[in-house]
Amino acid sequence: MNVSFLQELLNTISEQGRQFLPWGLGGQEDIVTLSRALVSGRGEASGVAIARQILELYRRQKSSERQQFFAFLAEGLAPEPKAVEAMARAYLAAPAPEALTALQRAVESPRQEFFRRLNLAPGATAEILGLRRDILQAVRERPGLKSVDEDLRHLLVSWFNRGFLVLRRIDWNTPAAILEKIIAYEAVHEIKGWDDLRRRLEPADRRCFAFFHPSLVDEPLIFVEVALTSDTPAAIDDVLDEARKAEAASAPTTAVFYSISNCQEGLKGISFGHFLIKQVVEELVRERPSLTTFVTLSPVPGFARWLNRGLSEADETVVALGERAGLAGLGSDGWIDAPAVEARLKAPVLALAARYLLTAKAADGRPADPVARFHLGNGARLQRINWRADRSTRGIKEAHGVMVNYRYDLKEIETNHEAYANEGKVAAARSVRGLVKPPERVPVAQRLLGAPVDAGKAVAPRAGTLPRPEPTSS
Amino acid sequence: MNVSFLQELLNTISEQGRQFLPWGLGGQEDIVTLSRALVSGRGEASGVAIARQILELYRRQKSSERQQFFAFLAEGLAPEPKAVEAMARAYLAAPAPEALTALQRAVESPRQEFFRRLNLAPGATAEILGLRRDILQAVRERPGLKSVDEDLRHLLVSWFNRGFLVLRRIDWNTPAAILEKIIAYEAVHEIKGWDDLRRRLEPADRRCFAFFHPSLVDEPLIFVEVALTSDTPAAIDDVLDEARKAEAASAPTTAVFYSISNCQEGLKGISFGHFLIKQVVEELVRERPSLTTFVTLSPVPGFARWLNRGLSEADETVVALGERAGLAGLGSDGWIDAPAVEARLKAPVLALAARYLLTAKAADGRPADPVARFHLGNGARLQRINWRADRSTRGIKEAHGVMVNYRYDLKEIETNHEAYANEGKVAAARSVRGLVKPPERVPVAQRLLGAPVDAGKAVAPRAGTLPRPEPTSS
Amino acid sequence: MNVSFLQELLNTISEQGRQFLPWGLGGQEDIVTLSRALVSGRGEASGVAIARQILELYRRQKSSERQQFFAFLAEGLAPEPKAVEAMARAYLAAPAPEALTALQRAVESPRQEFFRRLNLAPGATAEILGLRRDILQAVRERPGLKSVDEDLRHLLVSWFNRGFLVLRRIDWNTPAAILEKIIAYEAVHEIKGWDDLRRRLEPADRRCFAFFHPSLVDEPLIFVEVALTSDTPAAIDDVLDEARKAEAASAPTTAVFYSISNCQEGLKGISFGHFLIKQVVEELVRERPSLTTFVTLSPVPGFARWLNRGLSEADETVVALGERAGLAGLGSDGWIDAPAVEARLKAPVLALAARYLLTAKAADGRPADPVARFHLGNGARLQRINWRADRSTRGIKEAHGVMVNYRYDLKEIETNHEAYANEGKVAAARSVRGLVKPPERVPVAQRLLGAPVDAGKAVAPRAGTLPRPEPTSS
Amino acid sequence: MNVSFLQELLNTISEQGRQFLPWGLGGQEDIVTLSRALVSGRGEASGVAIARQILELYRRQKSSERQQFFAFLAEGLAPEPKAVEAMARAYLAAPAPEALTALQRAVESPRQEFFRRLNLAPGATAEILGLRRDILQAVRERPGLKSVDEDLRHLLVSWFNRGFLVLRRIDWNTPAAILEKIIAYEAVHEIKGWDDLRRRLEPADRRCFAFFHPSLVDEPLIFVEVALTSDTPAAIDDVLDEARKAEAASAPTTAVFYSISNCQEGLKGISFGHFLIKQVVEELVRERPSLTTFVTLSPVPGFARWLNRGLSEADETVVALGERAGLAGLGSDGWIDAPAVEARLKAPVLALAARYLLTAKAADGRPADPVARFHLGNGARLQRINWRADRSTRGIKEAHGVMVNYRYDLKEIETNHEAYANEGKVAAARSVRGLVKPPERVPVAQRLLGAPVDAGKAVAPRAGTLPRPEPTSS
Repeated sequence: MNVSFLQELLNTISEQGRQFLPWGLGGQEDIVTLSRALVSGRGEASGVAIARQILELYRRQKSSERQQFFAFLAEGLAPEPKAVEAMARAYLAAPAPEALTALQRAVESPRQEFFRRLNLAPGATAEILGLRRDILQAVRERPGLKSVDEDLRHLLVSWFNRGFLVLRRIDWNTPAAILEKIIAYEAVHEIKGWDDLRRRLEPADRRCFAFFHPSLVDEPLIFVEVALTSDTPAAIDDVLDEARKAEAASAPTTAVFYSISNCQEGLKGISFGHFLIKQVVEELVRERPSLTTFVTLSPVPGFARWLNRGLSEADETVVALGERAGLAGLGSDGWIDAPAVEARLKAPVLALAARYLLTAKAADGRPADPVARFHLGNGARLQRINWRADRSTRGIKEAHGVMVNYRYDLKEIETNHEAYANEGKVAAARSVRGLVKPPERVPVAQRLLGAPVDAGKAVAPRAGTLPRPEPTSS
Repeated sequence: MNVSFLQELLNTISEQGRQFLPWGLGGQEDIVTLSRALVSGRGEASGVAIARQILELYRRQKSSERQQFFAFLAEGLAPEPKAVEAMARAYLAAPAPEALTALQRAVESPRQEFFRRLNLAPGATAEILGLRRDILQAVRERPGLKSVDEDLRHLLVSWFNRGFLVLRRIDWNTPAAILEKIIAYEAVHEIKGWDDLRRRLEPADRRCFAFFHPSLVDEPLIFVEVALTSDTPAAIDDVLDEARKAEAASAPTTAVFYSISNCQEGLKGISFGHFLIKQVVEELVRERPSLTTFVTLSPVPGFARWLNRGLSEADETVVALGERAGLAGLGSDGWIDAPAVEARLKAPVLALAARYLLTAKAADGRPADPVARFHLGNGARLQRINWRADRSTRGIKEAHGVMVNYRYDLKEIETNHEAYANEGKVAAARSVRGLVKPPERVPVAQRLLGAPVDAGKAVAPRAGTLPRPEPTSS
Repeated sequence: MNVSFLQELLNTISEQGRQFLPWGLGGQEDIVTLSRALVSGRGEASGVAIARQILELYRRQKSSERQQFFAFLAEGLAPEPKAVEAMARAYLAAPAPEALTALQRAVESPRQEFFRRLNLAPGATAEILGLRRDILQAVRERPGLKSVDEDLRHLLVSWFNRGFLVLRRIDWNTPAAILEKIIAYEAVHEIKGWDDLRRRLEPADRRCFAFFHPSLVDEPLIFVEVALTSDTPAAIDDVLDEARKAEAASAPTTAVFYSISNCQEGLKGISFGHFLIKQVVEELVRERPSLTTFVTLSPVPGFARWLNRGLSEADETVVALGERAGLAGLGSDGWIDAPAVEARLKAPVLALAARYLLTAKAADGRPADPVARFHLGNGARLQRINWRADRSTRGIKEAHGVMVNYRYDLKEIETNHEAYANEGKVAAARSVRGLVKPPERVPVAQRLLGAPVDAGKAVAPRAGTLPRPEPTSS
Repeated sequence: MNVSFLQELLNTISEQGRQFLPWGLGGQEDIVTLSRALVSGRGEASGVAIARQILELYRRQKSSERQQFFAFLAEGLAPEPKAVEAMARAYLAAPAPEALTALQRAVESPRQEFFRRLNLAPGATAEILGLRRDILQAVRERPGLKSVDEDLRHLLVSWFNRGFLVLRRIDWNTPAAILEKIIAYEAVHEIKGWDDLRRRLEPADRRCFAFFHPSLVDEPLIFVEVALTSDTPAAIDDVLDEARKAEAASAPTTAVFYSISNCQEGLKGISFGHFLIKQVVEELVRERPSLTTFVTLSPVPGFARWLNRGLSEADETVVALGERAGLAGLGSDGWIDAPAVEARLKAPVLALAARYLLTAKAADGRPADPVARFHLGNGARLQRINWRADRSTRGIKEAHGVMVNYRYDLKEIETNHEAYANEGKVAAARSVRGLVKPPERVPVAQRLLGAPVDAGKAVAPRAGTLPRPEPTSS
């Protein structure tokens, strides 16, 4: 019930546990010595105490000390090369099942067992996530740590199997300790304090759900915010307007997923969003059988960058020279609220957004836009592109105010997914397809007159006391 | 709260889930086709539905069909030999980290991913344990399934990491659905119905604790029964006597662990007993600071078999010929309650029990007795051997009525464990050591007169509606 | 969560509380002295400690000591006659609101405040119910205690207001400590142990609900057992048959209330059954919208006694002399399973049962049968009278095997209740009315041949360790 | 768990319940007609539905309509004068127990039964508290409603018996819906938003406890804020300083109760503070055995008013004329932070505060200061008077910055209480007594020079969205 009381209790026990460090390791403060002990036979008997001490030391380490510890993880706990070599030779000589098993054992890093035993300490799972977050940062400069991250990721995939996750509704009766994390972790539309939070949780036509893991009691892994409405909203202000009245709770037809945020940097690359959306759809249908339409109201975070690069590189697959003139004024101060300007820009920008979403690809052949990638990969359909939909500083900088509705239609999710996965086909409503025109080639003379639009600067991430999460989607 | 309601709900959802099986797999009833789909890209999108269907089909399979499915797991989901070979060669040619990573990936069985995705279905973890139980049985006759079991075990070690286990007290306020499992899973001293159960849970001087896993809500993994007393009991009847009065709850000094049972056959080989005992000691100390002594009252399950084999094989390292005469009457009908007989047998049998516990070794050099192995491996000390301690049919057949107290002394657990692990040294009280005399050699003539004791027949396992658990210890 | 742990904790605190007994009452063992202190000013400051001590002493009192204590409650804590007299005179002289208030205060027993303060002690509510149970027994012989009971009842009506009761489903996941009380308190169809209990709770087509009070955590106040079926059962064996299969849980149409038991003798005269049935109907409809029919399968506990008295007193309003011959064999050994006998008896006995239920009245003009009174008073309709419906010893002795279905039809509950309350009208199906014929007068000669049926002896109440509850109904 | 979900569910049920209003009351919108039905026989059968409808109508009533409804409660549901008269006469004629019982029944207002039945509606308890709050306001202008309030109070005393209250710790894991009420209800030292709240709940050396009633799930009745320290603080800033570090949680010796707030205006006159303090002391001792000292840091809300009145009325029992000169500057702008001024004022003001606390009496002979009355009545001792202890606007206006420590010493609580209750004796430390000097009489000439201090204006109550609670104490 009372988490903080529990934690205090666990801390006390942990304190007591200190005295049980095995003989000869009593006052041991060297993290490498302890780590070696943990994977040895002593770890079997006294794993809890050693693991506690390692985590305690890690918490107190300075950055440079941590780098040394990471190096030890990478080199000191790697598979034994001689053993790998011997077993590889034996397998090649006679590829029997036993030889394969022996080879499997030889190549498994002692790191995996190290992390498994580290998890014996009370509260260790959260700290192991923190460790991975640190390693993910370190790996950028020291690619040799990649194998450490890979082992951690492998283990976390196993531990954070969807079968172990618990879906919980987040509302105004949720403990404050969890709610403050929702505020901190929201990565799409910033929550501006407790009053703003309450507006998203308390009204009868709002829902929020999160996945939790039993070992991370008060830490959401990912959460989604939902509005129950009578039609598909075309702008985020329709959803988040402070002055709006909660709709009569009677019989909403539409559930709008307007924000999804990953919370744990340490779980980067381990995806839950897909499962979350599907389970929340099941929950909502059960609670409110009147719901028939499930859509998102999602950002298009890569649009402006793509467009700017196309313009600056004069890439005609992005914007044909002949189209440039039509973009004059885009990015100028206050353009989005200047009626004459925005009215003129609407058609060409929407057409470009459709081109971006339907044709722009990343190096791996999948859609360039990360949010599109997520929802299309889940089997959703690109339903509508909305003009002047997000007029926040970030929305304008990243997407010229454009937002998208993706629709989850249970009858076609599977077909969409298959077509997407096998043929790279993007499911889109006819009206979206109708927006796209191939870039128009124009005479050279005209090209020279085309003025590039303001390239837009990268938006600084919102500061926060808690680690900044990786925005998933919506 | 209400588990059965929840299960019903989940079942309903599961039913609905059926219709979402991916396109082309709609009515699919072939478990192999579905299993291939699960590990393919389709499994990413529709894993929950496919996993449900596989488990549903598995539940309905006949034994022969299951054997075919197991064969598919062994062969159809094994690592690709060509890939393993290629990566092994590449590694040998240039053992760089990337080559190692590639080799690690090549040798990992697709089975691991298969089981991880199988766990997507609601309630799957329990069914995966059931699957492993079935494979453990099948593997006896078909050693080719060993690799399947090995992969499952590897995954379960990760999932059932002690860091994820939850200790819960079992008492008379525990839901009946869990209590009936305690009755069924008790593997040491049979619980003879609900009244007997209540006598072990309700009195103020009794405790019971179990480990649970968050994904197996109403299934204990292992549990221990404890009596709080004022001294170390010398016979199981002292603990389980129906007529006894609960001791004044004031200030017990001694916690007696008189029964530990593993509950899940599907977790065979994954050990929790060590952690359970240590955490229960912590719990008890916190609740009852007056407790200073932690002992077991444990069976000696291998004693009679060892003695009988020694006698029938005339193995003088077990019983010297000269000692045989002293054993006359052991095993005869009602000997244990015949004062003259048991009084005469006491000294020689206790000496033999001490010899068994201190010197008899299994093939791997560890103590022959499985219960001794468990407690000594945990760092406990062999404290006392008790005469006429278990007069049940089983106690007499397996151990000639002998029981043992192992003592957990927090100050010496670590030293004992180290000495045991490194040197195979058995920690024992001086009084126990004093019982042992080297087998006495006697003249040949006398040998011929020695009558073998009754060899004792194997005790039939107690029947029960639930799968019979593997007795751990105590 | 863990009630027993909590209780132990509370006991410990209670122990400590002892030392805080106010100065001068330290070792006080006289319950009257303490009771006077409790209602005095000292009770305001140290009520918790004094109340604990009073309850502790009461628990230890012998029966004769309790009688003295009851006498004190009756006389020592009665309103002050002089004050009552003075205020009565004042009111009569000038019946102003202030005079009324003063009179109200003068007539209120100090007992009420005494009991309110007694409830300050932890766990006191349960003990106050026990006290009332004791007083209810004592009052039979000492009518002077009636006013004590009246004050207690008045307070309990207030404390056990339906607004404070909590409905909880009882199932196989309910704590054993509560389930054993369900076994003990079942007052209609005995539960023969844990297996029988499980058959009533676990199958998907069974439900059980109870009312609880927040201050009596593990004590049900009243519970009802329900079977979900596809039609209205005509015999209790159809419901309780050990060998029956749970019906496919798909879409039951009928909820059968086949047992309702009051659990607390100390709450005698405070009725919850009415609220329980209505709320359970709401619960069931929400969970299973396919349910459309709500009926009981109820005993007719007064039928045989009424019939026997009629026969022995030759009361022709019960049985006309001419009808007696038709009853030959009723009550003879094994008559109910002798086809020829029971076939002959069916029509006359059913007719008599209908006469009993429709016309027999108690002194207050309400139906003579207590179960009929309960359900008709709730607005139910007498739907059907069933032959050979309860062949248990008790069912035969009390009702010649007859049982009744009362139907709760939401559309007519209110009208039935009004007609019953205002005009004493019994709502009954046409087919039930059709069974009734006015007692037929026969010539005297024939009368002399009529043999009285076996009068049946009172059934001894089932023994149990817990106080035997008052059977409510069904 | 999820209260808001539950409430929504209850609302839905409530909606459905509407259709079950008894025949003839179907669309009834007249609250008086419904109220008469509720206390009639129809209320027995359909009380839940009628009660719901009454509360629904009450919620929608305008103020003037409510006044009419109150009048009905006062006159329409009063005891029947003729019956009272008859029974009073009968009793006077023959004062037998039966006559007394009959008189008791005759004088009990039908209002009591009305309110008991009103409580049948889901969620009614909270609304009945709201009703009493409204009546308490109305009664100021219409004393005829006093009897209505008296009946309600009588019932609430019974319902909110301390035996039914639940103590819960409030911390940072408490649901936000409850925490926002803590912010709103704090009546002593305003909580300035969520960050301020967190500072009072989250640090390891802070505690907060509240009483709840099972029928008011998310409404605290009263709460207390506690600081665990190593000595008795002399100023509120020591406790609430934003920049302070949480003290090492090791072994605090002192628990400081620095704020107690009543939350429910509808429970005015029903006191829980006494029980709360004693139970919190028990909780704290159990959790932190190192605690030995329990003190408050309390306001002296009546001091300045008393002093000002004394000065303006030239009441020499308050301030002798000769003392007036010494008070020059008291109340001038910023005096408390002007070193020369405050240093000069310290001694005379402290002496006056001691005089106020030790000698000033209300009309009933009890101490004039309400906070003093509360703590002294509980058996606490006036331990210390602190200078410059509360420099907030309110602290200066109400008490010239003075605060008091009351000490709860378990060994003397009872004796203090007795002496206070019986002899009106104020328990005070010797050092406090030492501050008091009898007001010094001075020659008339000098009197004329005495300048009155600034009388201070009443502090406006802090605005809030929730009803402002009645400050209890601290």
